Amino acid sequence: MKKATHQATKEHNTTLVLKTIYHNDQISRADIARMTSLTRTTVSEIVTELMGLGLVRETGFGPATIGKPPIHVDFDAGARQLICVDLGEEEFHGALVNLRGDVLQRHSLPLGDRKGEAALQLAHRLVEGLWAQVTAPILGIGIGTPGPVDPDKGIIRQAVNRDWTNLDLKEIFGARFNVPIHIANDSHVAALAECAYGGHGRTPSLVLIKVGEGIGSGIVLGGNLHTGEGFSAGEVGHLCVERGGLPCTCGNHGCLETVASTPSLLRLVRAEAERAPDSPFGRALAARGASLELLREFNESGDPQARALVHDLGTHLGVVAASLAGVLNIHKIVLSGMPTLFGEPLLEAMRTEIRARVLPEMARETQVCFSAIGSEIVIQGACALVLRKELNLP
Amino acid sequence: MKKATHQATKEHNTTLVLKTIYHNDQISRADIARMTSLTRTTVSEIVTELMGLGLVRETGFGPATIGKPPIHVDFDAGARQLICVDLGEEEFHGALVNLRGDVLQRHSLPLGDRKGEAALQLAHRLVEGLWAQVTAPILGIGIGTPGPVDPDKGIIRQAVNRDWTNLDLKEIFGARFNVPIHIANDSHVAALAECAYGGHGRTPSLVLIKVGEGIGSGIVLGGNLHTGEGFSAGEVGHLCVERGGLPCTCGNHGCLETVASTPSLLRLVRAEAERAPDSPFGRALAARGASLELLREFNESGDPQARALVHDLGTHLGVVAASLAGVLNIHKIVLSGMPTLFGEPLLEAMRTEIRARVLPEMARETQVCFSAIGSEIVIQGACALVLRKELNLP
Repeated sequence: MKKATHQATKEHNTTLVLKTIYHNDQISRADIARMTSLTRTTVSEIVTELMGLGLVRETGFGPATIGKPPIHVDFDAGARQLICVDLGEEEFHGALVNLRGDVLQRHSLPLGDRKGEAALQLAHRLVEGLWAQVTAPILGIGIGTPGPVDPDKGIIRQAVNRDWTNLDLKEIFGARFNVPIHIANDSHVAALAECAYGGHGRTPSLVLIKVGEGIGSGIVLGGNLHTGEGFSAGEVGHLCVERGGLPCTCGNHGCLETVASTPSLLRLVRAEAERAPDSPFGRALAARGASLELLREFNESGDPQARALVHDLGTHLGVVAASLAGVLNIHKIVLSGMPTLFGEPLLEAMRTEIRARVLPEMARETQVCFSAIGSEIVIQGACALVLRKELNLP
Repeated sequence: MKKATHQATKEHNTTLVLKTIYHNDQISRADIARMTSLTRTTVSEIVTELMGLGLVRETGFGPATIGKPPIHVDFDAGARQLICVDLGEEEFHGALVNLRGDVLQRHSLPLGDRKGEAALQLAHRLVEGLWAQVTAPILGIGIGTPGPVDPDKGIIRQAVNRDWTNLDLKEIFGARFNVPIHIANDSHVAALAECAYGGHGRTPSLVLIKVGEGIGSGIVLGGNLHTGEGFSAGEVGHLCVERGGLPCTCGNHGCLETVASTPSLLRLVRAEAERAPDSPFGRALAARGASLELLREFNESGDPQARALVHDLGTHLGVVAASLAGVLNIHKIVLSGMPTLFGEPLLEAMRTEIRARVLPEMARETQVCFSAIGSEIVIQGACALVLRKELNLP
């Protein structure tokens, strides 16, 4: 606990005014004063300061009620740009975005079989490519990466698939790019994206489960990310869902990833088609090869084999969702990535499993749904991370 | 987000000074100024104010280094008293304590088969009994109770075993006792006790699992209790540990409480003795009846039947501890109540299960241990709750 100072008070009130302008298009100084309970004088001082930084601009006159019409101010989304990077997939993906997270430029580089230093170089090249496109002052670089990350130090503790251990990415990138750099686990930043852009209000509590090559989740409690003491909170991909199940890369058996990651699901799809090669599903698979798209189509048309696979996937995700709901008593569990292909049949299987595994009252209050943010959720989250750290937004 | 005010700054700094005195016996105003970075003048003003409230007193002179010797001040633990109540067990238990949580008086009333209004009357009588013993101004009444509790409103949402639904205990007790009243779930306040008096530092993260008639846990993140959106965070007694297991009072099957609460354990002890009536364990049970004490003795002497029962108990607790560790990535899991009777064999079984169920790195960093606070942990927690709410201590 530190002493409260005049400086801290001022920073707090500046953030308050900036947030108010950010969340309200076309607002007058008088409205800001009313909404924040700050004095007109304080608001005017802060607005002047924010205009000096270019974050806020005057946009014209509002309608006059009495006396002269009020001048409206607005948040200038184009005043800064952010470089946002997702190092969590098979293709490194980055974007240049404005202060509202609108994508201005995209850039991708396939990872191939690069690991260690080579993978790091690729990430470097990706940022270089975006850096060359910048047309406004840079607010910062935001990076979502696999593995536990110390977000204050910007060190990646361990990203097994990248062969990175205690990689001080903040220092390495900081030496080349002289702007603020913020790094966090990819599932954690995805949760920040859901929190900022998912329409859950200003200080939501939610869990975002991200499923792809791996599985992870990010936990947001009252608008704040819970990272955990080892920066591994929400590491649900390696929670056991089948004691004595298949071996996992982590050394344990029956982890969620062994049955519910994208590669595991494709393996199960192939096994199911081999089991019944003459079924419509089996024949389609022989003709077209195993793919998520194939499973999506057959699930949608109600094919029993596809439905059974989706049901099992939902059940396994449900085991872990039940742990999340039961431990945290958070009412919103949001799915992102591969499971969003499988609609209500998947959600229903998850809900059934949650009902069987937590207190009925808690299960009733738990909503399970799909994220609306789409495949760039980590990019959006990296943007939210930088906005949060640099401007206390949103 | 609210505006920061001069008043908020002052309150913050007053708390800071009070905390500093609370944690440091015999301290001078100059030392406080040094430790808090506040000015000597501000510290002197605040100390004078705290002395006016009776919370701080001058205790004499310290050694002079140069000039006149400094006057020492101290926290006066006897300046207020607190009434603390545990409504979570078969016997309602209360205590009168000072500002350090030292017990001055105890009072207990057996619940018998009372439910609803009769149980409420008993709680009332318990507080009345302690109220009559008070010898200093009352800081407040703290209550730990079963079931989810809205701690701000002081309403017990539902305590099934007490037959209480939406019971506004704060209002009911407030009408009779004109002092601040704070109410929370019994496992949640137990976690506050562990946090305040368990020697884990000032802002620890930990989970306290409390096992007795029922099973619950309290989650402390960075010194703050995480209550959950429905006030049911840490409701681990009803997490499923055996899909399709025994029916539970909650309507589900295979909840942790069906295999690891005290009544469930005693049932399993009896079943084991019936299975092998001629073993030393079976004969002792026939002679002395099933009891925790019997199991404790036989576990300690290494009896294989007792050890197997303890191993299963540890395994079941370990399933839930793994969910807690995997979801929260909190490094300290502390057990209170019945499991503390069974020592290392129990902890080892839990650790084994955690290792099998979470990421090896996370399992390595997770400590599982017993609370040192003992059977009055809810009383101590009710004290910590009132201190926290009324004085921002400890």
